[in-house]
Amino acid sequence: MFCASVAYPVQEGGRFDFEYFSTHHIPMFVRFLGNNCVRYEVHKYLASPGAPAPTYLGAAYMWLQSGEAFGAALAQHGDAIYGDIPRFTDIEPVRQWSEVVEAGDN
Amino acid sequence: MFCASVAYPVQEGGRFDFEYFSTHHIPMFVRFLGNNCVRYEVHKYLASPGAPAPTYLGAAYMWLQSGEAFGAALAQHGDAIYGDIPRFTDIEPVRQWSEVVEAGDN
Repeated sequence: MFCASVAYPVQEGGRFDFEYFSTHHIPMFVRFLGNNCVRYEVHKYLASPGAPAPTYLGAAYMWLQSGEAFGAALAQHGDAIYGDIPRFTDIEPVRQWSEVVEAGDN
Repeated sequence: MFCASVAYPVQEGGRFDFEYFSTHHIPMFVRFLGNNCVRYEVHKYLASPGAPAPTYLGAAYMWLQSGEAFGAALAQHGDAIYGDIPRFTDIEPVRQWSEVVEAGDN
């Protein structure tokens, strides 16, 4: 299993509409991914007592079965996905692609 | 649902034993968390064609029901958890605490 993630760093003067990101942008992105995307989550980073201030505002994680199918979906729907970004942010995100190498449920 | 994560950035000259991190350190951490931890995953970040180099080497995500119980487990087992870190890395990680605000299965 793979995981594509996008994380938006805390940025002085940066604009970020978390509501739009979590309820419109990411669900639209996930629809374009079809069955290749088995699960998604949107995380809102919180300050915790005694810990350093959060590095990121929020992030989305999409669990995917195939990197090739993910690339094909981006090629096909990239205009709609990337064109939607200015509607909620002007912050440059950190985009990552990972393999889930270890996992367990309790 | 909350998610505690720890991510190790790519660092010139940094030492990181991914095998130890994924098969010893994180599973030990998760055992200390008990039933409060409903799931965990270890991600290995990969280069992808045409994308910028990964920012992080690897990360672990732990999904938790209670922040209070997480804090109590850290207070009780912190010595064992933090004392284990030099066995696999000398890189300072980014630790984050988030709330899962949106999620879906396909």
